[in-house]
Parts: sequence; C-alpha cells; structure tokens
Amino acid sequence: MASRGAVKSAVAVHSQQPAAYFKNATKSPLAVHTGRRPFCLATYRHPTASKRYFSGTGPSGIKEFFPEPNAPQIRITQPAWKHPIYSQKQLEDIVIAHRQAKDWSDWVALAAVRTLRWGLDLATGYKHDKAVSLGKKDPQQAVQKYAMTERKYMNRNIFLESVAGVPGMVAGMLRHLRSMRRMRRDNGWIETLLEESYNERMHLLTFLKMREPGWFMRVMVLCAQGVFFNAMFVSYLVSPRTCHRFVGYLEEEAVLTYTREIADLDAGKLPEWETMAAPDLAVKYWNMPEGYRTMRDLLLYIRADEAKHREVNHTLGNLDQDNDPNPFVSEYKDPSQPHPSKGIEYLKPTGWERKEVI
Amino acid sequence: MASRGAVKSAVAVHSQQPAAYFKNATKSPLAVHTGRRPFCLATYRHPTASKRYFSGTGPSGIKEFFPEPNAPQIRITQPAWKHPIYSQKQLEDIVIAHRQAKDWSDWVALAAVRTLRWGLDLATGYKHDKAVSLGKKDPQQAVQKYAMTERKYMNRNIFLESVAGVPGMVAGMLRHLRSMRRMRRDNGWIETLLEESYNERMHLLTFLKMREPGWFMRVMVLCAQGVFFNAMFVSYLVSPRTCHRFVGYLEEEAVLTYTREIADLDAGKLPEWETMAAPDLAVKYWNMPEGYRTMRDLLLYIRADEAKHREVNHTLGNLDQDNDPNPFVSEYKDPSQPHPSKGIEYLKPTGWERKEVI
Ligand SMILES: [Fe+2]
Ligand SMILES: [Fe+2]
Ligand SMILES: [Fe+2]
Ligand SMILES: [Fe+2]
Repeated sequence: MASRGAVKSAVAVHSQQPAAYFKNATKSPLAVHTGRRPFCLATYRHPTASKRYFSGTGPSGIKEFFPEPNAPQIRITQPAWKHPIYSQKQLEDIVIAHRQAKDWSDWVALAAVRTLRWGLDLATGYKHDKAVSLGKKDPQQAVQKYAMTERKYMNRNIFLESVAGVPGMVAGMLRHLRSMRRMRRDNGWIETLLEESYNERMHLLTFLKMREPGWFMRVMVLCAQGVFFNAMFVSYLVSPRTCHRFVGYLEEEAVLTYTREIADLDAGKLPEWETMAAPDLAVKYWNMPEGYRTMRDLLLYIRADEAKHREVNHTLGNLDQDNDPNPFVSEYKDPSQPHPSKGIEYLKPTGWERKEVI
Repeated sequence: MASRGAVKSAVAVHSQQPAAYFKNATKSPLAVHTGRRPFCLATYRHPTASKRYFSGTGPSGIKEFFPEPNAPQIRITQPAWKHPIYSQKQLEDIVIAHRQAKDWSDWVALAAVRTLRWGLDLATGYKHDKAVSLGKKDPQQAVQKYAMTERKYMNRNIFLESVAGVPGMVAGMLRHLRSMRRMRRDNGWIETLLEESYNERMHLLTFLKMREPGWFMRVMVLCAQGVFFNAMFVSYLVSPRTCHRFVGYLEEEAVLTYTREIADLDAGKLPEWETMAAPDLAVKYWNMPEGYRTMRDLLLYIRADEAKHREVNHTLGNLDQDNDPNPFVSEYKDPSQPHPSKGIEYLKPTGWERKEVI
C-alpha cells in the first residue's frame, strides 16, 4: 500500500490549511491558480499541446467555463436528482468485474463494446494491460508499462462521458413513448434510465470544470453523439435486452479505466492530480464530506457511479422488458434481505438475476 | 350553483358508505361493476358502439387493464416524481386564460394550435362555443347546445393525453443532448420538461384505467405519435421558444376542454360520471384526500396540471433558452415574494415575464 502514500499526503496538505484551501475551492477551482503551476489542470499547458488533436484550447486558461447564470432574483437552482450518499468504505470497495456472456445477445453486446474500446484506444494512443482488463492482475502492477498522463486521461474521460449520457436518455425516451403508444404501464424503468443519463452528464460537467476542451474534441463529440444516438435509437427498438447488456459491458470498461486512473494516481504517476481539488459542482452533487474532496475522491465517486450503472444495466438485461417492474425503485416484501436499491449498499457487480429480484 | 348539486350528491353517496365504497375502489374501479350499469364507464357499451370508430373494444368489459406486475418479492414500485399537493381551493380556482400573441413566433405557435384543434374537432365531431373558448362566456351556459357524451369525452381525453407526453420528452432529451454536445450546463430545464411528460403519461394511464381503447384508437395514437414526435423534434431544434409557446397554447385548450367537462358534469349532462370513482392509481399519484376521489375531483386535478403546464411553457417561452435558469426549480433570494414553484400556489395563467423571475 506504499503507493497510496502520495494520496494520503495530498489529503494531509489539505488538512493543514483546510479553511483557506476550501474557501478558494468553493469559489471556483479555476480561480485558485495562484502561481503554483500544477495546482489546476485546466491551467496546465502541455509543451506539445498545439500539436495534439485532443487538446484543450481556449485563450485564457483561468476563465470560468461554467459561470453561474446571471439571474439577480435567483439564489440557487437545484439538481434534478439528489445523489444517494456513498460511504468511504463503499467507495473503496468497488471492484473490477466481468459478467460472462451466456447467449447470442450477450455476445453481440460484448463484441460491440470490445470493438469500440479497441477503436478508441487506437485513436487516442491509450493502451492497457490485458491481464488487468480480465481482472487477473492488479492494475497497480501495470502502471509502469504504459505512460498515460493527466491530459490524456482527462481528454479520454471528457470524450467518453459526453457519449455516456446517451443510452439512458434514449432508452428512457423510447420506453416513455412506447408506454403511451401501446397504452401500458412502464413499471418504473424510465426514472432510473433518465437518472442514469443525468448522472453521466454530471460526470461530464465535472470534468469540464477542470479542463476546457478544444475545437477538435468538440467536433469529435458532436460526431460521436450523432452516430451513437442513432445507433442506440435503432438498437433499442430492435433489442432492448441487448442494449442494456451492452451498457453493462461498457460500464465494466468504465470501472476498469477509473480504477486504473486511481491506481496511477496512487502510484505517483499523475502528480498534478495529487494536489487537485474536486470542483464545487462535484462537492455539492455528491455531498463530498469535508476532507474528502480531492481529485482522488472525485474519481472514487465517479467509479462508484459507473459500478452502479454496470449493476443496473446488467440487471435490466436479465429481466422481461415488457412486464417486470424496475427492481431499483421497488420496495421489497422482506426489506431485511439484500435487495437492489438506489444506493450501493448491496451492489452486485454482475447484476441481479431475475429470480433473485422478481 | 344549482348545477353543482348533482356532484355534491355524488360525493354524499360516498360519505354514506365510505369504507365499503373505497375498499372496492382501491382494489380496482373496474371490479366494482356490481350490476349497477352506469357505475363504471369501462363496462358501458353504447348501443351503436360497433358502428363507431373511436370505440372501446375488448371482449370483457371488466378485465383489469393494467394488472400489477406479477413480482412475488416486490411490494410496490414508486412513481418517478412525487406530485405536489394541490388544495381544494387551488383546484377550484383554475381559470381559462389566453396569452396574447406578441410576435411572429407567438403567431406561428397559435396558428398551429388552432389548426390542430380545428382538425381534431372536425374528425371527432366535437364542437364548442367560440365565446367560451375566448373566456367571454361561462362554459356552463354553453352546455345545452352541443351534446358531448361520456364516451366522446373519454375517447378525446385518451387520444389527446397519449400525444401530450411527447413535447416534454422531446424538449428534455434535446436539451440533454445539447448540454453534452455543446458542453454547457442546462440550468435545470430538463427536469421540469421530463416531469411534465411523466405527468401527462399519468393522465393517460388514469383514463386508460377507466376505458380500454379499441384497435382504431390504437392505430390513431400510433400515427399521431409518429407525426407529432418528428414534428416536435425538428421544431425544437429550429426554435425552442416557439415550441414552448406552442405547448402553452395547447395547454390553454386543455384547460378549456377540462373546464367544459367539469361544467357538463355539474350540469347533469354526464350522469355516468357522477357516481364514478377515481381509479386507485390516481388516488395514489395525486394524493387525493378521502371524500374527494370522484370523477369530478379527478378532472379538477388533471385540469390543474394542465394549467401548471400552461404556466411553465408560457414562462419558458419568455426566457433566454440558452442562459436562463429554470425558474420552477430555483430558490429565490426573497422567498416571501410570489415566485414560480413546483406547485400551484402562485399560478400565473399566462406565464411569468422574464424580468419578473430572472
Ligand atoms: Fe460516467
Ligand atoms: Fe458510465
Ligand atoms: Fe394532460
Ligand atoms: Fe397537457
């Protein structure tokens, strides 16, 4: 656990001067740039930035990217869905997992995810250890081999989160329309799917608070959204089960990537992130407790969210799409038994089987 | 107020035997059919039903149309959004209103709504008094002239509610995608738009609990959804402001229609509805207090919802679509002043002007 020392010490830095530190951080993490260069990633310019495609541009690195709206009469606008509270232990306990493909539908979903990941890794120069992806090797042992930087990770995160909000919205919308068209009740699925898409959008906005993307990234996001939205729209009409399985596998990859980011951070490979604070937006959304508001904490929260989506979508993929109620917003006849919920107290990495919950 | 006597007495019938009455109603209003023919609309067959297109078919009138899902381990599945509480006074105080069109965008929206209403009225043989639609004449005075029946109203309500859930979902989805694509915050609009579409879907499901639609109606709904979804999708990309105004005008018509239904009921023109109970689904969703669970109460709740959507969409149509926060989920610096909220305590029939809320 020596590799976690760096993070522990980063937390220690905060606790030495917490008041001043968080006072600044609360205003805006982008405004904290006080000459200490590695403090805020958004202000950091890689020497070869102009030659890279996935680059953060913007004339001034310290401008506030999401100003509060100028509305003199309004004090605050509340988030759409309150985030459930995650405990520190739950956050640290998230594990990499893989659900075995069992039928054709599963294999199609898995092949699609593998292909997408392969293509993206190739395009962004990201490599990862196969043994790690299979959960057979501790990601911390793999960090020496491939050099991912804060920039590369951040660009990747922004790109992926900007498409991650698509499937939940498409699925929720199509189920809504179908419920009205076929005149049947939905049994609570829509809510969880829309909330998932909102949560993914909050991931994106959080990362954007830390780094303003350049024009090339924006074009890529635009194209990716166009393609992915239409692909999901058609696929969900054809086979919603396969789509939920697909998202389940996608989230397996997300948990893997964030686990690797945390491991790299702990191993001292991402020094800029060690002293970085989570933006105010994130502190409020996740209810991050004082003293647990570093970049590492943020990655823990996001990884836990991805693990939740992994569980939700693998579970929905196991159900009768037309008739089963949504296990995640249902109350159980025996609530003392572990059961699906909105939080992660009974998280099942590979999802709940139908017979366990219905 | 003589015309309200019929409804008062309907309520009185309930209070004489509330326990047994609601015990049955809670199980299922469709199961209460105990020989008293006019008790439940779903079981009522018009003599010429087979010759009418908008007819409710189904081999047995008393089958439960939305059975609770068969899930032995689950006790209940909660609704996605809790409905705000409306007081009896607020419900009765809802008024017909019309916002004057002020610019080209408003005129386009108004013309579209007028055209749609004219087409639908023609297709369904519905007529209404012009003076009433302009708010110049009490709807109760108009009821003698045109004979609308419970059947005709119910078919119309089902058809309209089945498309009413489209605009909120389309707008919410497009704003969600845009927020991710343009990497900007949404400022709380999405939530209200999605909640609106959910609320409209609950209207539909409530009416469906009372009447099972026939195949012709289903085909009509399918076609209407296809056309309306695509039209809203394109229109909202072109001019979201016009779309919100359009929905504002549409909801003006909805308030008018439900006001007329209530007036007809009070005038004794819809005898079957006088003794009808609101389905259990509705009692739970709106938190209808005991003793206020008749068909008339249900229409009051639904009309209030439509008045809320009217206010919301007229207000959103007054705002800067890109930068203004959603006034309906914001907290105000001076909360003692009347301000937009989720409930109807400060309802403004023609919407809030931008300078009043931002
Ligand atoms: Fe995410
Ligand atoms: Fe995700
Ligand atoms: Fe409605
Ligand atoms: Fe409506």
